[in-house]
Amino acid sequence: MFQTLPGFREFYPEDCSIRNHIFRIWKRSARAFGFLEYDVPVLEPLELYIEKSGEEIIGQLFNFTDKGGRQVSLRPEMTPSLARLVAAKANGLKRPVKWFSVGENYRYERQQKGRLRAFYQFNADILGEEGSGADAECIALAIHTLRAFGLQSRDVRIRLSDRTLWMLFLENLSLSTAAAEAVLLVVDKAERVSAEKMKEMLGLALAKVGESGNVDVLMNELQVFRTLSSLEAIEEKLARKSSDALVNRLVAWRSLIGRLDAMGLGDYVQVDMGIVRGLAYYTGFVFEVFQADGEGRALAGGGRYDHLVKKLGGPDMPAVGFAMGDVTLRNLLEEKKLLPNFINAVDVFMVAMGEDAFRLALADAVRLRDQGLAVEYPFKTDQALGKQMKLAAQSGASFAIIYGSDELAKSGVTLRDLRAGEESFVPREQVVERLFAVFG
Amino acid sequence: MFQTLPGFREFYPEDCSIRNHIFRIWKRSARAFGFLEYDVPVLEPLELYIEKSGEEIIGQLFNFTDKGGRQVSLRPEMTPSLARLVAAKANGLKRPVKWFSVGENYRYERQQKGRLRAFYQFNADILGEEGSGADAECIALAIHTLRAFGLQSRDVRIRLSDRTLWMLFLENLSLSTAAAEAVLLVVDKAERVSAEKMKEMLGLALAKVGESGNVDVLMNELQVFRTLSSLEAIEEKLARKSSDALVNRLVAWRSLIGRLDAMGLGDYVQVDMGIVRGLAYYTGFVFEVFQADGEGRALAGGGRYDHLVKKLGGPDMPAVGFAMGDVTLRNLLEEKKLLPNFINAVDVFMVAMGEDAFRLALADAVRLRDQGLAVEYPFKTDQALGKQMKLAAQSGASFAIIYGSDELAKSGVTLRDLRAGEESFVPREQVVERLFAVFG
Repeated sequence: MFQTLPGFREFYPEDCSIRNHIFRIWKRSARAFGFLEYDVPVLEPLELYIEKSGEEIIGQLFNFTDKGGRQVSLRPEMTPSLARLVAAKANGLKRPVKWFSVGENYRYERQQKGRLRAFYQFNADILGEEGSGADAECIALAIHTLRAFGLQSRDVRIRLSDRTLWMLFLENLSLSTAAAEAVLLVVDKAERVSAEKMKEMLGLALAKVGESGNVDVLMNELQVFRTLSSLEAIEEKLARKSSDALVNRLVAWRSLIGRLDAMGLGDYVQVDMGIVRGLAYYTGFVFEVFQADGEGRALAGGGRYDHLVKKLGGPDMPAVGFAMGDVTLRNLLEEKKLLPNFINAVDVFMVAMGEDAFRLALADAVRLRDQGLAVEYPFKTDQALGKQMKLAAQSGASFAIIYGSDELAKSGVTLRDLRAGEESFVPREQVVERLFAVFG
Repeated sequence: MFQTLPGFREFYPEDCSIRNHIFRIWKRSARAFGFLEYDVPVLEPLELYIEKSGEEIIGQLFNFTDKGGRQVSLRPEMTPSLARLVAAKANGLKRPVKWFSVGENYRYERQQKGRLRAFYQFNADILGEEGSGADAECIALAIHTLRAFGLQSRDVRIRLSDRTLWMLFLENLSLSTAAAEAVLLVVDKAERVSAEKMKEMLGLALAKVGESGNVDVLMNELQVFRTLSSLEAIEEKLARKSSDALVNRLVAWRSLIGRLDAMGLGDYVQVDMGIVRGLAYYTGFVFEVFQADGEGRALAGGGRYDHLVKKLGGPDMPAVGFAMGDVTLRNLLEEKKLLPNFINAVDVFMVAMGEDAFRLALADAVRLRDQGLAVEYPFKTDQALGKQMKLAAQSGASFAIIYGSDELAKSGVTLRDLRAGEESFVPREQVVERLFAVFG
């Protein structure tokens, strides 16, 4: 027997219903915010990802050489392809561009809880708008989506941070831009290592960019800054270092938080400078969504990436967006018992005694299906009535129509309400309308 | 600028709406027939396809060695994976299994009109039912789907044939099974080559399986049989060669055609023994769907494949199914002007003068979105009223809500019907309910 590849999933009907439920809520949420759906190829030129993320990315890709000698890769994410689409029609698109997608991405990674090699993502991005209103809108959409699944502020938390503020803070400590970026890579890992280990990484990072300095002092500054957890605490910490850039940045922060509060979403948001996002292309606000209790991998993450569209060959276009994966989300929804029970049942099951009766049933089935009702029947017409009624019950249908010889002799059928257990004789020409009336 | 790979498509929002329309009708049609949705991995072990189709298939695949040394391939079709899913749970599944999927497949083929390297397919299959009722149901679903797009019997034609009947006919001509199968491969190509070329291929095919015989006589028999175009003509042709197997087969034919007629779908069906489907695993009725006028590639194709599940390691399980692609279908729907115009517009556009007014708007936006309405607003609150009203008009929204200082001083807003061009003052606490009433 052939096996499914590790990290890939099969979807039997019940699983497929749950997957589709997640897709439906993702799409409905994005549309409520006026985002338009797009999609991009599953296979792309390898260069697209190297250009964005550097050669290191190759180790995590399903990449290969195709039969035409092209270096290609399964897409590990949507953003580079999105940037290409927007760049190619930059002048013809109404701005801001508000687009979303629901699609599968592929990464050759070690499997662990919440991480597979093939996973679905909901991506939503706003391009062409530099103000923090776009950041607020993306965060609001992420929260709206989680709420639409039934998750509340006690279940999930948005950890909100800001790479712009981090850079201003680090430059105030007299670090060069290169050193500041190297330091941020260390801060990104701080939660997962000991203080001792972090200090060691810090020394190495600074040495690598040719910067010397007192690692102990820097370490203390980082430990204070990365644990700031409110806008007030940030303002207090930076009060003595005011600059125009800093003042403007704090205005953007107040606007962002004020808008989320105005939407009643403030309870979901936790200021948390410990979030910096590993990827260097983020340029402003960054955020990650986590389950409020327990550990677990991020449910979603995103932020502003103002230079990426240009880097990938497009115009200079500010952008902000986020991605939400299905694996961690589904685990959480299961844990919180927020997944509905899907009952895959038809509306009507037809029972016919003999081929002639069955052909009358088929004619009625066409009319019912044309109106959107789901209709089923046994393919064998020589089975006893009792056997067929058992199949009707197993089908989960609400109604059975019985095309028996007695009824047909009187130009009628028996309509049985399978839930109520009641049945009645109905002239055949009325049975379809009778059912339309029930199903609306 | 990076290019999309040849044969792969990008979906800008307008294209994506059309793609989703096709998906929606595929899924709705399958559900009306009581089929359940499943899905399988995009990447599978290469062996799965070699086992089904032989080594020759590799030339058409996007196959490679992954980082774990596994021989893998993008899926060129759904059937082998489907067979694996059903085989793995064969005893636990309610029979007949009626399943469908909508997904993308990948083939490394030369591009031409109607053929891409990445294309979507609607697959529907019935497993565990050997009677021709299952064949009738698959054909009926294919036709129902085409009708749901607005295609009529003058637009599309189902060409219906039967490999069982072909084999009975060829065995009657004293051909061995191996010779009969070799001959069918020639018949499959007959429409695309001259009679002379066909005769040459026939001679080679027979020689290859070590069969001698009068090629001219066989050629004449084939030319007659493959152009039979009604059940009556088939019955007449085979009248003198009656056997139990033949009699039973003609009963199955009459039942199949009788059921399609009973559903009023007979006009769509053309008996056409010229269809044999190239793939050797088909075992009974086979069919292909074409545009009624003009040439063009098949819109759909399918048939019975009773031995495949077992061949792929599962139990002995009869099966019948079909696949419908999106590329040819979309071309035809465009030609027949059967694609709706998709207008991607929000329901409500909010206009706010200043940040405080905007925060009131945001609170109302949350309530409207929670009820499923699509709401948009400019992210900048310092734009003049005229500029914002222009954006409202461009958004395509049905209504604008204007949060101006004059209105807010009186605790209200202006609600503007953008289509009727009428507006009125509404107390703010009533505006959300007012809009719910309009949008139901």
